[in-house]
Amino acid sequence: MTSHSPERLRVTYTLTCASDEDAEAKARDIAREQTVELPPGGAPAELEARVVGALEALTPADRGRWRAVIAYDPALVGADLPQLLNLVFGNVSLKSGIRVTSLDLPPALLARFPGPRLGIAGLRERCGIARRALLCAAAKPVGLSATALAELCYRFARAGFDLVKDDHGVTDQDSAPFRERVERCHDAVARANRETGGHTLYFPNVTGPRATLDERLDVARAEGCAGVLVNALPLGLDTIGAPAEWGLAVLSHPTFAGAFFGADHGIAPDVLLGTLFRLTGSDGVIYPNVGGRFPDSVFSEEVCGKINHALRAPLGGLRPAFPVPGGGIDAARVPHWIERFGGDTIFLVGSSLYTQPDLDAAARGLVESVRRHGA
Amino acid sequence: MTSHSPERLRVTYTLTCASDEDAEAKARDIAREQTVELPPGGAPAELEARVVGALEALTPADRGRWRAVIAYDPALVGADLPQLLNLVFGNVSLKSGIRVTSLDLPPALLARFPGPRLGIAGLRERCGIARRALLCAAAKPVGLSATALAELCYRFARAGFDLVKDDHGVTDQDSAPFRERVERCHDAVARANRETGGHTLYFPNVTGPRATLDERLDVARAEGCAGVLVNALPLGLDTIGAPAEWGLAVLSHPTFAGAFFGADHGIAPDVLLGTLFRLTGSDGVIYPNVGGRFPDSVFSEEVCGKINHALRAPLGGLRPAFPVPGGGIDAARVPHWIERFGGDTIFLVGSSLYTQPDLDAAARGLVESVRRHGA
Repeated sequence: MTSHSPERLRVTYTLTCASDEDAEAKARDIAREQTVELPPGGAPAELEARVVGALEALTPADRGRWRAVIAYDPALVGADLPQLLNLVFGNVSLKSGIRVTSLDLPPALLARFPGPRLGIAGLRERCGIARRALLCAAAKPVGLSATALAELCYRFARAGFDLVKDDHGVTDQDSAPFRERVERCHDAVARANRETGGHTLYFPNVTGPRATLDERLDVARAEGCAGVLVNALPLGLDTIGAPAEWGLAVLSHPTFAGAFFGADHGIAPDVLLGTLFRLTGSDGVIYPNVGGRFPDSVFSEEVCGKINHALRAPLGGLRPAFPVPGGGIDAARVPHWIERFGGDTIFLVGSSLYTQPDLDAAARGLVESVRRHGA
Repeated sequence: MTSHSPERLRVTYTLTCASDEDAEAKARDIAREQTVELPPGGAPAELEARVVGALEALTPADRGRWRAVIAYDPALVGADLPQLLNLVFGNVSLKSGIRVTSLDLPPALLARFPGPRLGIAGLRERCGIARRALLCAAAKPVGLSATALAELCYRFARAGFDLVKDDHGVTDQDSAPFRERVERCHDAVARANRETGGHTLYFPNVTGPRATLDERLDVARAEGCAGVLVNALPLGLDTIGAPAEWGLAVLSHPTFAGAFFGADHGIAPDVLLGTLFRLTGSDGVIYPNVGGRFPDSVFSEEVCGKINHALRAPLGGLRPAFPVPGGGIDAARVPHWIERFGGDTIFLVGSSLYTQPDLDAAARGLVESVRRHGA
């Protein structure tokens, strides 16, 4: 094992070894595969010392697993998010029994990434809410016309939701073309705000083909939107930062990310949805809350707490980001989750309202409950 | 089960059910989660029929699994790759026991994607090789200077390799900054070509932060490169198409993709690296060959054959793309793999040459062997 240096980038891999696998050999293989990608002796001696990852610790973990801490030279990353993904879990993703469970980036490397441009404080300012938990609704389903989606936005805004976003599957379908939808939904929310004196914000989903992104961001900004929704992995994780360049807040959706959340292989949810999504510029990150319609085996309360922590805790000079638990949150349970997760949380509540006999009354009831409990 | 319509987009999901899970309920849940994202009764009746995925077949598969064919309305996708990923495996990625094992896109939808701009025939033309298998080397490891990497490119070109690419971990590190590296490596290959009368092509790795991509492509084109390497998933799958807009061939690397290749959950390698990488514009797709340093449990010979098929077989009007098996191919075994995989294959041989006592002799021997066997 090699000595500890504070300037290195450290990845903790939890290793699940096959019966014929030796944990130390597996760890040393990762350290080479992710760097020189050559067997011992294949690289010049000087690079063996400087470039090959250093195995700093190897300790037994639960259920026969091992925990390996590998330190890499941050010069391998530069300020390059795709290369950070590649270094941390690129080629070893193609192996098995390797799970990234912690990522520790040195301050000089952290300083090279933008992080959230607004963060919790900036997004609160745009919402005009200084302290309590925030409420977000989703206008859905895909297939509705722009007019029908706008009507839903209006009703959620009238009820007093802080944010209304497009469903992540609503993009630019013929049923509700992007520009028409953004105009109608934004106008509907503005009308509700005039009527109530409220400050509801509408976040359109700008995810689309690469060539359309600038135009969609331009439409969103021109219309007066304060922020947007992005499907982070389908779009490309590094592209999360684009809306911020247009002055728009970034709400990131976890669609497609679940492939990484294998029990024995992949990247832990708090590292991917927490650290990495924050690093690249998410002001808020949606994730499936425990007890919803996604499996608690993946999103346990402990895992949700770790995601919250990774988004909010000090991380170099990066601003904290809002955790946005969703994925089937029962409206009646929101006060419970405010107590568990704290006020610096945005609760995304969708399906459980749509199945109520009176959507408007249910939405108003939820808003009142959050205003009471959310201080 | 609903009736079969040729215009629909069909996804086959292989389901691994927990002891308390019913296969049909699981399949119907996928059909809703990927579309309306609401429980039964939550969406207007008209959308229930048109937008919710239709479960067309549910049949037992091996090891107690089930195979569910779900048909979606292609209007949900438009011509939008991120939305295709989202529809096929977006939110259900966050569930478990769901594996995409086949993807069948209707002709009208296929026609909306570019596919390879050059494909096998176009890339052969740039290499000046009409028929035989091609050979590709990688200049590595990361950490070498641009001069040292260029020297390796020179040696592979002198030996007669058809292609020399940057290692996928070589990006824009201070040890070999992008522009200097591309200039030196391209010049070194051009010098070798002048000396030998050969036509070796140099493909630089252009993967980098979003904001640098246009500049890197511009450098590559200005330098005279015929193509580039992209780390497809770290960059964003939709961005694979960008180099083609600059007239550059696209060689896609599978780094980071392995998270999707779970035995019970994810996307089958031939669907992701084959169909989807081809759809978005890869002229060649690198994957870990069986018998190399990646696990045969994931990349069996059968899986490799399926990837080859997905890249080459008729797919609407899309051009076929080159399979590029690599990941620890033993140089001595290349003739064997030519016989197994056929001549429309690029063999990526790296590590097994670097560990030879005489790199140049080993490289020359391999080239001769391919020229003999590869007709």
